[in-house]
Amino acid sequence: MDPRIHEHAETLVDWSARIEAGEDVVVSVGEGAHDLAVAVAEELGKRGANPLTTYASEEFSRAYLRVHEGEFDADPDHELALYENADAVLFLGGPRNTTATADVPGETRQAAARAQQGIREARMDTKWVSTVHPTRAGAQQAGMAFEEYRDFVYEAVLRDWESLAEEMTRMKEILDEGSEVRLVKEDTDLTMSIEGRVAVNSAASVEYDSHNLPSGEVFTAPYATEGEVYFDVPMTISSRRVRDVHLTFEGGEVVDHSAAQGEEALTEALETDEGARRLGELGIGMNRGIDRFTDSILFDEKMGDTVHLALGRAYESNFPEGQEEEANDSAVHVDMITDVSEDARLEVDGEVVQRDGTFRWEDGFGDPNEGSEPEP
Amino acid sequence: MDPRIHEHAETLVDWSARIEAGEDVVVSVGEGAHDLAVAVAEELGKRGANPLTTYASEEFSRAYLRVHEGEFDADPDHELALYENADAVLFLGGPRNTTATADVPGETRQAAARAQQGIREARMDTKWVSTVHPTRAGAQQAGMAFEEYRDFVYEAVLRDWESLAEEMTRMKEILDEGSEVRLVKEDTDLTMSIEGRVAVNSAASVEYDSHNLPSGEVFTAPYATEGEVYFDVPMTISSRRVRDVHLTFEGGEVVDHSAAQGEEALTEALETDEGARRLGELGIGMNRGIDRFTDSILFDEKMGDTVHLALGRAYESNFPEGQEEEANDSAVHVDMITDVSEDARLEVDGEVVQRDGTFRWEDGFGDPNEGSEPEP
Repeated sequence: MDPRIHEHAETLVDWSARIEAGEDVVVSVGEGAHDLAVAVAEELGKRGANPLTTYASEEFSRAYLRVHEGEFDADPDHELALYENADAVLFLGGPRNTTATADVPGETRQAAARAQQGIREARMDTKWVSTVHPTRAGAQQAGMAFEEYRDFVYEAVLRDWESLAEEMTRMKEILDEGSEVRLVKEDTDLTMSIEGRVAVNSAASVEYDSHNLPSGEVFTAPYATEGEVYFDVPMTISSRRVRDVHLTFEGGEVVDHSAAQGEEALTEALETDEGARRLGELGIGMNRGIDRFTDSILFDEKMGDTVHLALGRAYESNFPEGQEEEANDSAVHVDMITDVSEDARLEVDGEVVQRDGTFRWEDGFGDPNEGSEPEP
Repeated sequence: MDPRIHEHAETLVDWSARIEAGEDVVVSVGEGAHDLAVAVAEELGKRGANPLTTYASEEFSRAYLRVHEGEFDADPDHELALYENADAVLFLGGPRNTTATADVPGETRQAAARAQQGIREARMDTKWVSTVHPTRAGAQQAGMAFEEYRDFVYEAVLRDWESLAEEMTRMKEILDEGSEVRLVKEDTDLTMSIEGRVAVNSAASVEYDSHNLPSGEVFTAPYATEGEVYFDVPMTISSRRVRDVHLTFEGGEVVDHSAAQGEEALTEALETDEGARRLGELGIGMNRGIDRFTDSILFDEKMGDTVHLALGRAYESNFPEGQEEEANDSAVHVDMITDVSEDARLEVDGEVVQRDGTFRWEDGFGDPNEGSEPEP
């Protein structure tokens, strides 16, 4: 077995989920995630935790959903009881076919998901972590050779998380103390207020309220957005390819938008509801183990030297306790990524925090006050 | 997909487990049982039942068990809650390697099993059914080509269960009304009392208190055994091969034993405890879809025109309510099979029930009183 599979399992169980002796753990195993599951079993055995494995088969779901008629029963007792009594849930993704449920009607999928609301909440109340085992189907989706993709995944997952978490803490502190963020690059000069918001240090560990492995982003919930922004990284909205998105904001809302491809999907998303025209998230990607875009949001939005903004729903974790009602509400959360590795800068309250892919605290950064004029 | 996989799933869900709308079903999927699981998903979807799939991976268990140190936690809450809230459990076996846990110490395995006593009981309190999907590893264990093995499995599983159940009811009635069973064949003349015992019609359905698919045997709990018996079908006792077993009974107990191969394993089994020297089961195999021995007890003991006897523990289901305390108790239950298809007969109270592989109610049987003298 590739020794990196064992390192992945160890990172997941130790750093991410903080599993301890006697804990009751659900291990959800994707169709192609067997090898990672076996490595996780060993880590759980060493720690004296108690695993129960579920089989997260897309083909099973497809077969079930396609023939099901009528209402779905709400939160079946046995499944609800399982998660209500679990201390942690480890989701081991690992597709054998990323389009395995392509012919299940969206309505059916949504109805089934709605019926599982309580189960989902019970799962979210545990120390849950989602990760992915590299499979050939995953490689294909990323447009890579299998070995190349494995290297890519392990580069992203097997970081020195402790030191990355420390670095991300610096960014969190800057955002927590700051009032206004400005992003400047080609076709972009955008200002957002972040006053009164709490940034989340998403360091791939439940200890940081972060539930994805890999992770590596710091995010907050901006408002009162003004100006224009260009997203040069391709994205997928409602299963449609969207490229070269331009948005113009006035008074916190999108007043103009365009895309070189898939503009309709973008328009539809914006028209979902009122909240869809406002930003719900500003995220700063800090995982430099991710060195390219693969059309997988789990990886793309964490990539070092990228910034992503999401239209729509904000995360409650960005609001101080008791202020969650201010969170932008929407049925959608559309992530859009822009590359800030070259000819770009990010400012907080007029001071440059990142310039051309270099953070303030890194070698070669220069003067934080230099070049804080727009050059669109 | 082989259409027989769908028929197997339908038989399992309908005939065996009697699944109804709204029932909460656990589907335990073996490593090689994916295709059967998908077919079962469809049957459960059609009926509006609620499945939760667990992943019964031997390699996962091995990895966990080999490194676990110290005590196993008794009945982890999450797993116990799952089964306590389930209406049915469908075990879909399907090995990828029948010796996948060969290097797990027996003690570890037993300690882990002991810690799961409550979970096991909760599972047994559901409508549980165990079946097997034909895999290459299964074929190899049976000494067959893969396609040949698939034919073998589906011949055994896809019976006309309703009519077989009716035929087995005849045998059950004969045994329920009878007092003494006598088995006569080469080196064999054995009498057993069955007075006061209740025969079980094991018709592969929870409706008949039968939990294996395939099944197809009628069994009871004999006592006061006298005489000698020869088992010409090879068996496995404590992972050791045992052949050509001869036993002599006096006053219900084994007083002499021999085997052409593996006699030690037989001796050890007999010395386990007092109950190990008495019979716990007399079973009459009636599934003629099973046409050969494959060293798998799930199939072998159900084979048409065989009789099996088990040393050790008796099943409570063979005792009228309130009389369970009479059941022979032992830590072992060693099944041994003898072929009765030729030169053999089974008598109940002096009347021949089966002669040379033909039952009393079948064509070509002849006179029930003929040949009821021993010819060992």
